[in-house]
Amino acid sequence: MSRSLIAAALAASLCLPGAAFANEANEAALKARQSLMSLIAYNLGPLAQMAQGRIDYDAEAAQAAADNLFNLTRHSQERLWPEGTAEGQIEGSAARPTIWENLDDFARRYGDLQTAAATMQGAAGDGLQSLQGALGGLGGACQACHQQYRVSD
Amino acid sequence: MSRSLIAAALAASLCLPGAAFANEANEAALKARQSLMSLIAYNLGPLAQMAQGRIDYDAEAAQAAADNLFNLTRHSQERLWPEGTAEGQIEGSAARPTIWENLDDFARRYGDLQTAAATMQGAAGDGLQSLQGALGGLGGACQACHQQYRVSD
Repeated sequence: MSRSLIAAALAASLCLPGAAFANEANEAALKARQSLMSLIAYNLGPLAQMAQGRIDYDAEAAQAAADNLFNLTRHSQERLWPEGTAEGQIEGSAARPTIWENLDDFARRYGDLQTAAATMQGAAGDGLQSLQGALGGLGGACQACHQQYRVSD
Repeated sequence: MSRSLIAAALAASLCLPGAAFANEANEAALKARQSLMSLIAYNLGPLAQMAQGRIDYDAEAAQAAADNLFNLTRHSQERLWPEGTAEGQIEGSAARPTIWENLDDFARRYGDLQTAAATMQGAAGDGLQSLQGALGGLGGACQACHQQYRVSD
């Protein structure tokens, strides 16, 4: 084995633990952000079903779901989107690489979701019409970010 | 086909959508509560690592993780534990069936976690010793529920 090959092999083996650690951290971040999305969807579910008349309006259940949505959307995004977790870079990611080129816009869209969740929290328990009035903003905030930054599903 | 067999087949086909729907709902609840646990663990991570000296104390990062933990533990538990989602009843569940026999105690233990997360939120940004002082209560609250109600892993 030539000296340069030995050096290359050594460098690769030295790098490996670092790379493995970074990969593990990225997988944890991916799982965390997908967990947050799942929980948001889970609480959006009954609100949308009530708004569409698929289940009866229930003020207490609506308020509980809206409170959960409010609290979930207080979660910061800082540790959820490390570099290297775009679609094609890590298995299971649906995040477009353009996120990392537009982090300010990405953060602004999350801010819109936070605002819409706060509006829903103030509306969900005040009757079906009130809930329906707040749902558009919430759905719109989800969609505005997904259309731009999520690989279509 | 005998009349009773036809009746049985009809009854089974009529029941199927209901059973399928219940199963789908239970799977969604399981996914939601496991998502919540994942996010709690993800935010507990840096706090524990700082407390143990495995990463440097960073007041801002500690506070962000503690804020996330506080907000996550405001999530209600009501829709997360439907009957039929214990270990052995649904794939992937590590929940002991005794949860459903002791729902008051189960809720009380979640209340202890909420209290410990609030304490951590008030402590994490005030220095390493302050964080370390609050971590025991938080870890203890996790453990108190897991030991009693989670299949050991």
